[in-house]
Amino acid sequence: MEKLRSALREFASARKWQPFHTPKNLCMALSVETAELTEIFQWMDSEESRVVDTTTLQHIAEEIGDVMIYLTMLADKFDLDPLNCAKQKILLNAEKYPHP
Amino acid sequence: MEKLRSALREFASARKWQPFHTPKNLCMALSVETAELTEIFQWMDSEESRVVDTTTLQHIAEEIGDVMIYLTMLADKFDLDPLNCAKQKILLNAEKYPHP
Amino acid sequence: MEKLRSALREFASARKWQPFHTPKNLCMALSVETAELTEIFQWMDSEESRVVDTTTLQHIAEEIGDVMIYLTMLADKFDLDPLNCAKQKILLNAEKYPHP
Amino acid sequence: MEKLRSALREFASARKWQPFHTPKNLCMALSVETAELTEIFQWMDSEESRVVDTTTLQHIAEEIGDVMIYLTMLADKFDLDPLNCAKQKILLNAEKYPHP
Repeated sequence: MEKLRSALREFASARKWQPFHTPKNLCMALSVETAELTEIFQWMDSEESRVVDTTTLQHIAEEIGDVMIYLTMLADKFDLDPLNCAKQKILLNAEKYPHP
Repeated sequence: MEKLRSALREFASARKWQPFHTPKNLCMALSVETAELTEIFQWMDSEESRVVDTTTLQHIAEEIGDVMIYLTMLADKFDLDPLNCAKQKILLNAEKYPHP
Repeated sequence: MEKLRSALREFASARKWQPFHTPKNLCMALSVETAELTEIFQWMDSEESRVVDTTTLQHIAEEIGDVMIYLTMLADKFDLDPLNCAKQKILLNAEKYPHP
Repeated sequence: MEKLRSALREFASARKWQPFHTPKNLCMALSVETAELTEIFQWMDSEESRVVDTTTLQHIAEEIGDVMIYLTMLADKFDLDPLNCAKQKILLNAEKYPHP
């Protein structure tokens, strides 16, 4: 995770993208990438979406990669790690949705 | 990452949520969580969004956690790891956006 | 349509919301409202989503109303009418997706 | 509005798209179209987004058209009219956000 964060910092820095990479803008980019994932599933039947062909799987992997990239860049602006955020949130969710 | 994936599998399993957790449905949930992040930034000035107070930071961390949770659950349905997907995608993006 | 546009202009003006109502911000608000609609359908089976109870129908109507409100306010910033934009776009789509 | 609704019904019918046009699927398509609008504004400064060139304006008009098309098709599945939904919602919002 730490390696991904620094790789993304270098990537943006080398292209001089930091002035554009405000949290607000990165959040918009994150929602655009999420929609590219949605586009793959939009006309599929819900059960059918469990099984996809190799080309679609490759496409899904790339779009998940893009969502993860923007999520990590956004989190990094606040010195947050998405993985830690998820772990913290699971504890809160466990209280919110108890199970027998 | 592996620990997060198995924790999420157990969480969904204990609550018997798997029948609802098709990739299509998880993708919709992912877009809902992304929008909850968008809601935080929607009326902020772009530059101002770089600096937030403690309460907002806590809110951002929780929503990033939720996005990460749904992204991980979606990826897991295809035996994918979001972190690996991001690493692969950076290599592709480096070709797409070369820099001097 | 013209009445809706002027009603929304007055509504925002009376509350002194115009400084916040830049196209960028309105577009983010539009995506948040769209997600509130998505939240209603996220765990439903695709076919089942065709038939909903009275409470859900009321909820859907309200969220469609909110999406329409933000779409109209966004369009109005560019002196556009969403209804005319749709009519123009249908002509373009008819060329893009011809049918026998 | 009534003309747009029937034009869209014919358009989908002629292309035999109705089996895919469940409310759930149309809602996903709506969120994809909203994101195409978001893509236009994502890297713009908020104030700058008020003034756009002719090409961008044409692009915005087309994407607003697409959002309106999917919103109308979704609403039509429940025999709702987005314009009426917006008018009803303004009355509710006026109670929710009173002004002096």
